Amino acid sequence: MDDPDALAERLSAGDRRALARAITLVESTAHVAAADRLMAALTPREARRIGLSGTPGVGKSTFVEALGTRLTARGHRVAVLAVDPSSTRSGGSILGDKTRMPRLARDPSAFVRPTPSAARLGGVAPRTREVAHLCACAGFDTILVETVGVGQSETEVAGMTDAFALLLSPAGGDELQGVKRGIMEVADLVIINKADGELTAAATRTAADYAAALRLMRRRPGDPDDWPRVVTASALDGTGVEAAWDALTALIDARAASGALARTRAEQSRRWFRDALREAATARMERRLDLAALEARVAAGALAPGPAARAAVAAAWPEDAPPPAGPDTA
Amino acid sequence: MDDPDALAERLSAGDRRALARAITLVESTAHVAAADRLMAALTPREARRIGLSGTPGVGKSTFVEALGTRLTARGHRVAVLAVDPSSTRSGGSILGDKTRMPRLARDPSAFVRPTPSAARLGGVAPRTREVAHLCACAGFDTILVETVGVGQSETEVAGMTDAFALLLSPAGGDELQGVKRGIMEVADLVIINKADGELTAAATRTAADYAAALRLMRRRPGDPDDWPRVVTASALDGTGVEAAWDALTALIDARAASGALARTRAEQSRRWFRDALREAATARMERRLDLAALEARVAAGALAPGPAARAAVAAAWPEDAPPPAGPDTA
Repeated sequence: MDDPDALAERLSAGDRRALARAITLVESTAHVAAADRLMAALTPREARRIGLSGTPGVGKSTFVEALGTRLTARGHRVAVLAVDPSSTRSGGSILGDKTRMPRLARDPSAFVRPTPSAARLGGVAPRTREVAHLCACAGFDTILVETVGVGQSETEVAGMTDAFALLLSPAGGDELQGVKRGIMEVADLVIINKADGELTAAATRTAADYAAALRLMRRRPGDPDDWPRVVTASALDGTGVEAAWDALTALIDARAASGALARTRAEQSRRWFRDALREAATARMERRLDLAALEARVAAGALAPGPAARAAVAAAWPEDAPPPAGPDTA
Repeated sequence: MDDPDALAERLSAGDRRALARAITLVESTAHVAAADRLMAALTPREARRIGLSGTPGVGKSTFVEALGTRLTARGHRVAVLAVDPSSTRSGGSILGDKTRMPRLARDPSAFVRPTPSAARLGGVAPRTREVAHLCACAGFDTILVETVGVGQSETEVAGMTDAFALLLSPAGGDELQGVKRGIMEVADLVIINKADGELTAAATRTAADYAAALRLMRRRPGDPDDWPRVVTASALDGTGVEAAWDALTALIDARAASGALARTRAEQSRRWFRDALREAATARMERRLDLAALEARVAAGALAPGPAARAAVAAAWPEDAPPPAGPDTA
């Protein structure tokens, strides 16, 4: 295994190999202490983090390829993290993403990486947040966190990014029902893709339908009056791709100017801390007690949830245990 | 303080005074052991639990009064729990609710109770779930959990009920923007109230607008094709109140028949257990460490959230502590 301090130094110098190895280390559950030492040795660097979601078939990879190559041409360094909650791909099998985004995968200013999300306490986000942090420390100023639109993952990705975009296909009538309601809740920008050729008119109609639906919902505190917005774009011919991006970054800049961005990020860090605290405390309890058996009895109605939980904590962690030394981080 | 076993026996016999005292005991943070003994001594009884939300001014109290008196006339025993996340009212100051629902408050088959929601880990739900359970054990077959439409509380109430209804006023244009997006996410039934006199036409238009918006969102797995639904009603003259209720209970019956209700309730119990586990573990840690200070340093960017959390758990709960006896509940 790499020495965490040496790895941190190479990563901070922008070494892509070091970044890849650091991500593998952080994603591994077997080397938590080394991963924590690595994280502690890094200096945070500023980066924009954007969440992007879309149902299968909407042209997400094509859109990210079109957007990413335009951003690197503008001088940005772009990291793409693909979160697929239905997959348990390890860091080794990234061929799929590299094939889906051939130009971006070869681009020296881009870094494409799937993040595995095997069932883990706290869902997909805990490690993805740390991976995004590693990419920022390695000098990537733009982090795209891509997720497939299947539910809970959007809320988690929205909770770790500065803004969230939803990619949809032009559609009519019943097809419109396909959007999971939780996604509308977190979208800052809805992009109707495939606004080209025969689908141009359908895309415009679909955009109007979603704009009407979003007007029934309240905007976020501090956001400009005309947000959330709906726009059309074509990843195929490039129309609207940069305009959508510029609108999104203008929103982030407005949030930064009002102080809302700093508040959001502080709140996200706090939630990350609380999530990690819960994960670590539960893992510690699971090494002592059979929580799965307790949970099954609770679900079957044989135990009252609150009393069962309090008894489990009291048993795993007796009140009269000797007082510990302070934490190393204090 | 009452003996928990004696209190449980009187509560199970339907004694309203015992129910009120049991709720006070469960809501108190000072008598957790006695509250847990009380809960353990109770036999669960079947009840329908419905969440109901609406913005201030929509006529929520009038609606609950109209609905509740009709249900008790049909032979139901109805408990109304008012969750107000902006309030820290204690169990003593229930005069407000009793004044707002004068007929229901005097009805021998009804029980009206505000549930205080002082800032507490895990939000409003933990104690409200236990209070709803107490009401069911006391023989109330219908539990209405009422909450004001201000955000997070709806999601929590939806996570502890069998179905969730949202009450809205007739409105046009910009006024429609007032609904927080998270509420649309959890609503099974949207009721446009005040569909009487001059507002009848506006109510019908508003219902059509929300029906169109809801068609853009996906229904819950297993629900009939025409859900979520939008209906109109008048709490003032009673029109549509019973029809809205019958639609909602028909939905719950359909979910029960398909097995979805049992799955939802088991999942809710599991989440309740996990929430209580997190609350108890965090409380135990907070008695040992200054988590607030750690969290502030995390929010300020001075500590990495994940490593800080793991160090805190390791410090509060050393891995080499002696193995505990099994929990009493196992």
